[in-house]
Amino acid sequence: MVLRLHIHRLLRVAFTYPAAYGTPSASRQMHVQIPRMASRNSDNKPKLLSQEEATKIDKELFDDYQFSVDQLMELAGLSCATAIAKSYPVAPSGANKVLVCCGPGNNGGDGLVCARHLKLFGYDPEVYYPKPTDKDLYNRLCTQCKKMNISFVSNLPDAGHTDESYALIVDALFGFSFKPPVRDEFKPAIALLKETKVPVCSIDIPSGWDVEKGDQDGFQPACLISLTAPKKCAESFKGEHHWLGGRFIPEALGKKYKLELPEYPGTDCVVRLS
Amino acid sequence: MVLRLHIHRLLRVAFTYPAAYGTPSASRQMHVQIPRMASRNSDNKPKLLSQEEATKIDKELFDDYQFSVDQLMELAGLSCATAIAKSYPVAPSGANKVLVCCGPGNNGGDGLVCARHLKLFGYDPEVYYPKPTDKDLYNRLCTQCKKMNISFVSNLPDAGHTDESYALIVDALFGFSFKPPVRDEFKPAIALLKETKVPVCSIDIPSGWDVEKGDQDGFQPACLISLTAPKKCAESFKGEHHWLGGRFIPEALGKKYKLELPEYPGTDCVVRLS
Repeated sequence: MVLRLHIHRLLRVAFTYPAAYGTPSASRQMHVQIPRMASRNSDNKPKLLSQEEATKIDKELFDDYQFSVDQLMELAGLSCATAIAKSYPVAPSGANKVLVCCGPGNNGGDGLVCARHLKLFGYDPEVYYPKPTDKDLYNRLCTQCKKMNISFVSNLPDAGHTDESYALIVDALFGFSFKPPVRDEFKPAIALLKETKVPVCSIDIPSGWDVEKGDQDGFQPACLISLTAPKKCAESFKGEHHWLGGRFIPEALGKKYKLELPEYPGTDCVVRLS
Repeated sequence: MVLRLHIHRLLRVAFTYPAAYGTPSASRQMHVQIPRMASRNSDNKPKLLSQEEATKIDKELFDDYQFSVDQLMELAGLSCATAIAKSYPVAPSGANKVLVCCGPGNNGGDGLVCARHLKLFGYDPEVYYPKPTDKDLYNRLCTQCKKMNISFVSNLPDAGHTDESYALIVDALFGFSFKPPVRDEFKPAIALLKETKVPVCSIDIPSGWDVEKGDQDGFQPACLISLTAPKKCAESFKGEHHWLGGRFIPEALGKKYKLELPEYPGTDCVVRLS
């Protein structure tokens, strides 16, 4: 079991998540916005993925479709920043400070990309990255953030300080490959997510939740950005904003896994699920 | 001179273009859209770059900011597809066929990424890629397109057939590192761009134009998507739609090169210049 978990983690580092949809065809007079296609789901109720299905889709995107982690992580992180900006628009002045808590895997990478796009959108993100992954991609993502004047905080602020200092927290600790229990080094961050009064925006999975069974002890983010397709735990999400992001799923893959993804509006990279 | 050109081309394969802006800071009550910052240009008249400046900015993004080609090409190609969809929205039914003409360098790579996102937006792109670059990134971009049922046409259709069959042409032949003359293998595509009555959307530079002096013999695209910042030749652009795309320029880089980039609206990855 330990070995299986370890292999799973290695795979997770080699591959990543995803998130988007397929395509149609259509006339010469191009004047109307993207049509509602019969093959798409118009009630915004996509299938909820099991952990195993999410892992298979992920692997297929990398192995068969030959996407690179750089590509999909960029689109996923952009989706997250976009969904956050649509849920909590940047204020014209004052403290748009956002604490981005990043885990050691791809979910943390999404968080680093998200932080960079939040900066470009006008927020003032700070990154808490307690177990940085010493791999080329992650090192580069950190450099990009640092060179864009995004601070890295080494000590996690307590809930009282967080509530005073930050407008939002981005939870990019664990993604769809998470298996409990939470490792010791991430327990303070999970505790903060539970205690803070600041809106928490979770990337793909609210961290610490069982990917299929959902919340075990009362943590509810205000915003959830599901990537690829929502996972089964999304049924337990009671927050205000649920988005689907990462518009890159090929139509054939969506059909194969019967994802029933909703249409994305126009050229948006996110679609609101609730 | 031949050697210098050759080195330039090698550099161009190793690095790429860019395109975007910087950032501000701001209050707790996040309720208003992204503010107009004093440091940003609000009349949408950014600086026009020389070829040398564009090359330097490009190199700095890769060397200093540690962006990968995958990352910036993905954002650039997404910008192009978005600008095209905003200029020529997909029709609810009929022929949304788009011919995407790709050159051998990064401009062609942008075209491949653009084709994929156009497919996701509901268009029916076909790729003409007469000199495919046998490098990992380019091979993967082609695989992604092919696996998403985007056809590759090996013979360039003539202008008559193009005007009947396609709604749009994307010109992704040459970018900001182009130096005349056009090589023989691309002359038919350049001739098509001149002859067709279908709207042509040029990525970064209308192909065949001198990057600084502009058009030499009468070709005018209907749409130009400048990446990073417009190049000097953009002054000769008389088409209907001019966009800036690729929102990823760090604020410090924008200041260093006095880019005077306009604000991007909300979370959009493109901003209309004219």
